[in-house]
Amino acid sequence: MSLKNRIQRLRQGLVEREIDGILISQPENRRYLSGFDGSAGFLLVTPKDKILATDFRYTAQARNQAPDYEIFLVTNDITKWFPKLLAEVDIKRLGFEAGHVSFALHRQLCDILNKGKSHRLIPVDGMVESLRAIKEPEEIELITKAAEIADAAMEYIKDKIQPGMTEREAAWEIEGFMREKGSDTIPFDIIVASGKNSALPHAQPSTKAINSDEPIMIDIGARIGGYCSDLSRTICLDTPGTFKKLYDIVLGAQLGAMAIIKEGMTGAEADNLSRVIIEQAGYGEAFGHGLGHGVGLAPHEPPRLGPNSSDQLANSMVFTIEPGIYLEEWGGVRIEDLVVMENGKVRQISNAKK
Amino acid sequence: MSLKNRIQRLRQGLVEREIDGILISQPENRRYLSGFDGSAGFLLVTPKDKILATDFRYTAQARNQAPDYEIFLVTNDITKWFPKLLAEVDIKRLGFEAGHVSFALHRQLCDILNKGKSHRLIPVDGMVESLRAIKEPEEIELITKAAEIADAAMEYIKDKIQPGMTEREAAWEIEGFMREKGSDTIPFDIIVASGKNSALPHAQPSTKAINSDEPIMIDIGARIGGYCSDLSRTICLDTPGTFKKLYDIVLGAQLGAMAIIKEGMTGAEADNLSRVIIEQAGYGEAFGHGLGHGVGLAPHEPPRLGPNSSDQLANSMVFTIEPGIYLEEWGGVRIEDLVVMENGKVRQISNAKK
Repeated sequence: MSLKNRIQRLRQGLVEREIDGILISQPENRRYLSGFDGSAGFLLVTPKDKILATDFRYTAQARNQAPDYEIFLVTNDITKWFPKLLAEVDIKRLGFEAGHVSFALHRQLCDILNKGKSHRLIPVDGMVESLRAIKEPEEIELITKAAEIADAAMEYIKDKIQPGMTEREAAWEIEGFMREKGSDTIPFDIIVASGKNSALPHAQPSTKAINSDEPIMIDIGARIGGYCSDLSRTICLDTPGTFKKLYDIVLGAQLGAMAIIKEGMTGAEADNLSRVIIEQAGYGEAFGHGLGHGVGLAPHEPPRLGPNSSDQLANSMVFTIEPGIYLEEWGGVRIEDLVVMENGKVRQISNAKK
Repeated sequence: MSLKNRIQRLRQGLVEREIDGILISQPENRRYLSGFDGSAGFLLVTPKDKILATDFRYTAQARNQAPDYEIFLVTNDITKWFPKLLAEVDIKRLGFEAGHVSFALHRQLCDILNKGKSHRLIPVDGMVESLRAIKEPEEIELITKAAEIADAAMEYIKDKIQPGMTEREAAWEIEGFMREKGSDTIPFDIIVASGKNSALPHAQPSTKAINSDEPIMIDIGARIGGYCSDLSRTICLDTPGTFKKLYDIVLGAQLGAMAIIKEGMTGAEADNLSRVIIEQAGYGEAFGHGLGHGVGLAPHEPPRLGPNSSDQLANSMVFTIEPGIYLEEWGGVRIEDLVVMENGKVRQISNAKK
């Protein structure tokens, strides 16, 4: 990974935002800029310095994973370590991540700084997230590997699944398969939802047995080197009429959007491509979530594709396209693939059969 | 679970804090007060009302899991749905969770409210967490079941582990065992760290093969009905001298603390019981984390046992006692058990052999 390039882009952002440094606390942002993937710590990046502040549990790991950073030991008492950390750098206007720092932590930092009166805290919104949204070739490679594992797991479970197997059993089969194929800890809880359960877009696998005449919604992701994949298929062991009809509408909505989405569109414009198809088929109310979301170190990250999203789609972004129809008394159908934008158009990364 | 009792205690807290209602957004707090375990949503609780506001993905689940709550549909545009939500209740002073609401969300809510000028946002710290710290008998039962699964997994892996097995293979064996024994998705990444890796208190399982002459630190937890367990053992297949010596110090520090800890002690006083033993043995610097933490719906929650913790230990609290010694060039030893405070003393919940 080109850590130097990332830091350079971050430092350009400091200049643009007229801040002298930034405190990074969001876990994926921390990892993206340093390589450190422990669960606690702050990066302090200025035009000159790169400091990783973390506690005893993680200092050795921090030295291994973030050799470019100076490691600073955090103790239990923030009123002691935070002023010491700031004393190491020459800054006045300190940015912090407004979407991640809690009200309570901000209040505490203000209290500490107001005693010194020499620093000002400046809220910063989505700065590292917008860097992360544009993927490097190495990142796309890792996402592609994670997608291949999810593809293989989907084919595996389609063969394995049969009437009487419970949702939980199927989910566990999938997880075992992906872990054996080299996935790190999986990035989100696997969804296997059958019958009416599949009307819940984010259902949890239950002990319900799967029947042959109902939709089975499967939503899975693997993780390689920190990078996630995200894939959904809905199958039916018998394929009755309702399933076939809804499936074809959703597939049409997905293929239509994938063919048309291009560079420069907003997330709302992309979303609308699928939405009009589903609306025209009479199921507009039943497609209650957005069309998709970015995928990278986090399973959900910018850009967002959905009504009201002004995120602009650009080359080297990786995101999902996942229209769905959910009918409370029957069940649901969602088809989700992962794509990357290249040369102004989307190319599909996931390849499980549809 | 006695949801009514929980809500009643929460409402008493509203009166004490002179607020007319509270917005709950922290996921475990949301689940604790409503039964709803989706990943997004807000509870709005007033002396009269109980509203669960969540988006399309979760509304059906919310109706199933939180039948006592009125369900309110959240859309993508908070400037639209938030005023509508507030219009449903008759309040002026609205509490929010200061430790969970981000600076950015607070700013947005302020902007929305200042247009109406009829409400005031009041930060509230750890209100639901302090309710959660005192466990009900049913909660202790679930934690005990989760502890039994971790105990069994620890015995299983001790028999199974052998030189040449990698840390990752061992971790995966443990996860498979716990899931087959009925654990929900496990609450935190399993730690299997051997040799020098065990000097990292929060190491991630690597592809390193385990040797017979080195410490192997294993830290695992299961989850039943949402409730977690947390258990650490450090073993050595051959038991060389250094291991035996450090193990006995840590075990002594743990047993000593468990025998003495009593109701009314602060987290700092409890921590100090183990810390003096390890310091007297000459390893004070090598015990860099706190003695323990509460366990419940979250694997880490109040009370905190550590230097500077003023949390008071009380009956019906469930927490870990986990002293450790970590030597960067050799490795580490940690022994962790789960206890519940009953009749002013601690009773051990976990029972894996030491």
